[in-house]
Amino acid sequence: MKISIIGATGYTGAELLRILAGHPEVSVVHITSESSAGSLIADSYPHLAAIYNQKLENLKQLEEIAAASDLLFIGLPHGHAMDICRSLKDGSRVRVIDLGADYRLKPDVYEKWYKVKHTDAVTRPVYGLSELYRSKIKNGRVIANPGCYVTASILALAPLLRDKLIDAGSIIIDAKSGSTGAGRGVALNLHFSEVFGNFRPYGVAGHRHTPEIEQVYTEFAGEEVVVTFTPHLLPIDRGLLATCYAKLAPGAGGGDIAASFARMYGDEYFIRLLGRGKYPALKAVRGSNYADIGWEIDERTGRVIVMSALDNLVKGASGQAVQNMNIMFSLPENTGLAQAPLYP
Amino acid sequence: MKISIIGATGYTGAELLRILAGHPEVSVVHITSESSAGSLIADSYPHLAAIYNQKLENLKQLEEIAAASDLLFIGLPHGHAMDICRSLKDGSRVRVIDLGADYRLKPDVYEKWYKVKHTDAVTRPVYGLSELYRSKIKNGRVIANPGCYVTASILALAPLLRDKLIDAGSIIIDAKSGSTGAGRGVALNLHFSEVFGNFRPYGVAGHRHTPEIEQVYTEFAGEEVVVTFTPHLLPIDRGLLATCYAKLAPGAGGGDIAASFARMYGDEYFIRLLGRGKYPALKAVRGSNYADIGWEIDERTGRVIVMSALDNLVKGASGQAVQNMNIMFSLPENTGLAQAPLYP
Amino acid sequence: MKISIIGATGYTGAELLRILAGHPEVSVVHITSESSAGSLIADSYPHLAAIYNQKLENLKQLEEIAAASDLLFIGLPHGHAMDICRSLKDGSRVRVIDLGADYRLKPDVYEKWYKVKHTDAVTRPVYGLSELYRSKIKNGRVIANPGCYVTASILALAPLLRDKLIDAGSIIIDAKSGSTGAGRGVALNLHFSEVFGNFRPYGVAGHRHTPEIEQVYTEFAGEEVVVTFTPHLLPIDRGLLATCYAKLAPGAGGGDIAASFARMYGDEYFIRLLGRGKYPALKAVRGSNYADIGWEIDERTGRVIVMSALDNLVKGASGQAVQNMNIMFSLPENTGLAQAPLYP
Amino acid sequence: MKISIIGATGYTGAELLRILAGHPEVSVVHITSESSAGSLIADSYPHLAAIYNQKLENLKQLEEIAAASDLLFIGLPHGHAMDICRSLKDGSRVRVIDLGADYRLKPDVYEKWYKVKHTDAVTRPVYGLSELYRSKIKNGRVIANPGCYVTASILALAPLLRDKLIDAGSIIIDAKSGSTGAGRGVALNLHFSEVFGNFRPYGVAGHRHTPEIEQVYTEFAGEEVVVTFTPHLLPIDRGLLATCYAKLAPGAGGGDIAASFARMYGDEYFIRLLGRGKYPALKAVRGSNYADIGWEIDERTGRVIVMSALDNLVKGASGQAVQNMNIMFSLPENTGLAQAPLYP
Repeated sequence: MKISIIGATGYTGAELLRILAGHPEVSVVHITSESSAGSLIADSYPHLAAIYNQKLENLKQLEEIAAASDLLFIGLPHGHAMDICRSLKDGSRVRVIDLGADYRLKPDVYEKWYKVKHTDAVTRPVYGLSELYRSKIKNGRVIANPGCYVTASILALAPLLRDKLIDAGSIIIDAKSGSTGAGRGVALNLHFSEVFGNFRPYGVAGHRHTPEIEQVYTEFAGEEVVVTFTPHLLPIDRGLLATCYAKLAPGAGGGDIAASFARMYGDEYFIRLLGRGKYPALKAVRGSNYADIGWEIDERTGRVIVMSALDNLVKGASGQAVQNMNIMFSLPENTGLAQAPLYP
Repeated sequence: MKISIIGATGYTGAELLRILAGHPEVSVVHITSESSAGSLIADSYPHLAAIYNQKLENLKQLEEIAAASDLLFIGLPHGHAMDICRSLKDGSRVRVIDLGADYRLKPDVYEKWYKVKHTDAVTRPVYGLSELYRSKIKNGRVIANPGCYVTASILALAPLLRDKLIDAGSIIIDAKSGSTGAGRGVALNLHFSEVFGNFRPYGVAGHRHTPEIEQVYTEFAGEEVVVTFTPHLLPIDRGLLATCYAKLAPGAGGGDIAASFARMYGDEYFIRLLGRGKYPALKAVRGSNYADIGWEIDERTGRVIVMSALDNLVKGASGQAVQNMNIMFSLPENTGLAQAPLYP
Repeated sequence: MKISIIGATGYTGAELLRILAGHPEVSVVHITSESSAGSLIADSYPHLAAIYNQKLENLKQLEEIAAASDLLFIGLPHGHAMDICRSLKDGSRVRVIDLGADYRLKPDVYEKWYKVKHTDAVTRPVYGLSELYRSKIKNGRVIANPGCYVTASILALAPLLRDKLIDAGSIIIDAKSGSTGAGRGVALNLHFSEVFGNFRPYGVAGHRHTPEIEQVYTEFAGEEVVVTFTPHLLPIDRGLLATCYAKLAPGAGGGDIAASFARMYGDEYFIRLLGRGKYPALKAVRGSNYADIGWEIDERTGRVIVMSALDNLVKGASGQAVQNMNIMFSLPENTGLAQAPLYP
Repeated sequence: MKISIIGATGYTGAELLRILAGHPEVSVVHITSESSAGSLIADSYPHLAAIYNQKLENLKQLEEIAAASDLLFIGLPHGHAMDICRSLKDGSRVRVIDLGADYRLKPDVYEKWYKVKHTDAVTRPVYGLSELYRSKIKNGRVIANPGCYVTASILALAPLLRDKLIDAGSIIIDAKSGSTGAGRGVALNLHFSEVFGNFRPYGVAGHRHTPEIEQVYTEFAGEEVVVTFTPHLLPIDRGLLATCYAKLAPGAGGGDIAASFARMYGDEYFIRLLGRGKYPALKAVRGSNYADIGWEIDERTGRVIVMSALDNLVKGASGQAVQNMNIMFSLPENTGLAQAPLYP
């Protein structure tokens, strides 16, 4: 299988390269970077030295790249994937997994939250939360790979919403992410001296992952769901934990919660159910495609607290993208992804 | 003024020493440690070398220590301060600030959450949240210095509860603390290799600071308040951030919130009101006695999110203890505490 | 191939399990732990949940374990491997890779630096620095896997010593290691609050890896080499960097240095030569078996500075152990070890 | 005393503000920033909110600022202080402490290492290593505050060079600094995700602090000294440790070393001599103006290893600048600087 990566010098692109280096069925044929075209990938990422000796190319060769590839991963800032997919429309049989936001939301919602015109009304994207949309992904042409916060939040509460075990109007998600979720672009608020030993909320009540979470929650709940979502920046590089709160539905109890999780995820390779009273830790998933889920019931207040942890660059981005690729090409879903977490 | 520190080799004891080194009205006359009696404090804490040349003593000299002191700070694990205060009862005029939990809760609540018999029914402790109980602290004999999570949580929501701006039944506190909150006792879950780069919840729906938060909330709300409280361990040494969620009361809006905070804290030296849309960061309070408070309204869900940040060892423990001492001895409240935060 | 791990709950044991999970030719048949026998490995290491479902066993079953295994990895504190190897002597055909210190030094040197009697005079161990002793390792019965500091130090200077390009009496090694090198045993000087944001030297002029470095240097130099070696504790979990200083031999220059490295390591899979003026970084090797080597000449003082970086738990311990296993069983040397580094 | 800070939004400027907030004899009358003129300092540095309510001004007002000030601190990148001092020449009685490099080196050495023309041949600067040049500093008009690496390196070896206890040709300094030493300017190599958990050398055999170290060493040794100096970037915000190696002079031993340190630093407030076999740790000096010095003799190789630790922003920059100011204005040298280190 031949794949190419459009936008290989962002963190999600580099992480795709890391993962695909161990994928037995894939060869990486083209990698692009507008800022570093012509240089070796190892000049941008020394950890890839001796693993990839490829030069970064330019998007000008898009047509040629697409023709040589079975699949394109797109790791560009939002707004660009639409242009690429539009320009690929006619004739190209290449499939696409977009790690950005362009195809995650309904166009009107996208335009409202991203303040950008949506320019591709033709593509029928499939939402790439692997465990929940597996059969659609299999046949998808363009996959919208979910956001990192979104993956953690959806995995945590989708079963409970589907099974009506929680009050859909009561959901609060307090999420914490490592810095790589913010990308490689330098900025004062990502300057090492400013983040080290620090911790702070950001994007309170206005983060763009909110509507994406709501869109999937709404689908699973069968009713419109609106949530309070608060992201925080952890002073670490990788890892994302979502602490999700909801009122238990009348009559719902611990047994129902356990059964609901088991029903939806009992056979999932990448979801590890820790059960009640066991809580996930970021380091137990670092570098892997696992999502760990634990939960607790606060009997005094009638709330359930579901905690999910994942590596934002793996299950929260590039790992899930490879999982989706495996689904699309009928490979065992964990091909190239069975790496154990790096602990400690 | 002569003070002594009972239990000087825990982190709160060492932090008292750090702060008092810059306090112009205090001399430290005795410091004790059961484990290190006889050695220099600098043997336990090299940062105090050349600042304190005192030897650690034994609790056996308690009576003598009390007689030589105007005030005792007690920095021992819960269960010990009761014994000390009981044994001081008769005749001693020494005043006490207990940094542990023994006097924070009503005895029956204490026994339920701490699984320890409360043995001092005589003492009438004063709760030492400086800004809220100032006049009682002034005349208190035994001050129960609040827990770190508690200080952050109370400061965040007390005004809104008092002014009936939030639904008291809807409160969720998602809190994150640095490792020094867990003390100096070694344990696998505090081993450097296990905590570095990690992040995890703990004590979900069962942490002992919960009833302490509820006790004060209840007082300010004028109705019984029960909360969901979830602590997390941050992979840093100092700092604590509480993200507090509540439903707005009908009709309450941003103007009311702002006015409520201004009314209660407008003149407070140690509380910095960042206002709506500005969020606190741990590093902006590091090493200082400040509590920074910011907030946001989630218009879509009708919730207010209040975020408070403090240094768990300063405003969350030893700094507030010194603030209380200043109040008790009619010194300007910021004496010895005006140190600017250490940033970056 | 059947392998067992004696002492699987230390960091090197857990790291063996992580690596072997991706090794196609190996099945782990027994794992032991004296402290946790009877429990699941995932109870000790949550990152291994769903990967290993094995129970930890007791050393009492050693004979049975050895009989069922082609190879034993021993991950115990020094002093224990000797006992195990002695008790295996007669009849057993099992091969051994010891990750501890028992077989690294000549017995008299061992006794002097480790203050322990060496009790196994029969075994003829092979020193397991894979790149330098490959042919002996292939046929070895008991392999002494090198220490982490030692691997970095030897790889950095062995070629230059062999080629007489540096003054063997002038070597200074200033080394810095992450905390996992100190193991999982809790201690105040490894308590998170004490190490976070800290940095300090330790074991100055007396660390036990010194004679091990000297032993190999001496062999390559063809003359007795004594070095100054100073380790430091980095406030990170993984990674080790050695900055090695030596006087250039008369007439030796940059071209000679480059040629020497190329000659010794030009074909090595796990050694990445960065060349002159390029310096290694810990993160570029994290989680991988690579050792990155860069160097510089200080023309003003006539010294060469060689910097080598590796992951102390991988190339510095368990990864090199698996590399040695591959050599011993005639597998391609990078089998199960080709994982790209985890960056960022 | 009225002081102004030219370049107040760099880390050294902000650190001056932090320290001076606790200085009883100083009022800060003007602060400037070319990039943020017109805004509040708290907009750039939230930790200073409620402490400083001043607006940042523009250098255009330099003449007026100088006239209103007894002392100017200059915290600008190298090349700017020369211009300012030149333009102040005539008539102004304001004194200057430059935290940059312009006046640290002899002009020809400066031009060679900084690749900038030195444009102020008139000023007779005094080198501001407080403990070593105290009497000259007292009467200096323009003080060149030393670099952070330089302060640590000089304090470590100056006594031994003066007393001829080490071979001046054998000095190697392996130094490690936190990220704030690199300033607040954003760059990929200071991006949080790149530095976190990482460690790497830089500027090997070419760092600009090298000639500054040599200049002072040469003066103390009474012979020309050339050193090998290797800086490394620690993944922490503050703190600098220099591990300094030198051959002992014939006949020199531990007693001589101890006596030499005691002679030079025995009465120094800010230098804590840990003695032989005790090693400094960064956290024991964090936030303070202390320099801690420990040492060891490697009997096997005849070398002495001296380790010095300081906070690069305090004793390595702004703290020493305030110490120099105290000297210049005949205040007790520790006025405003007696803050205990922030540990843990």
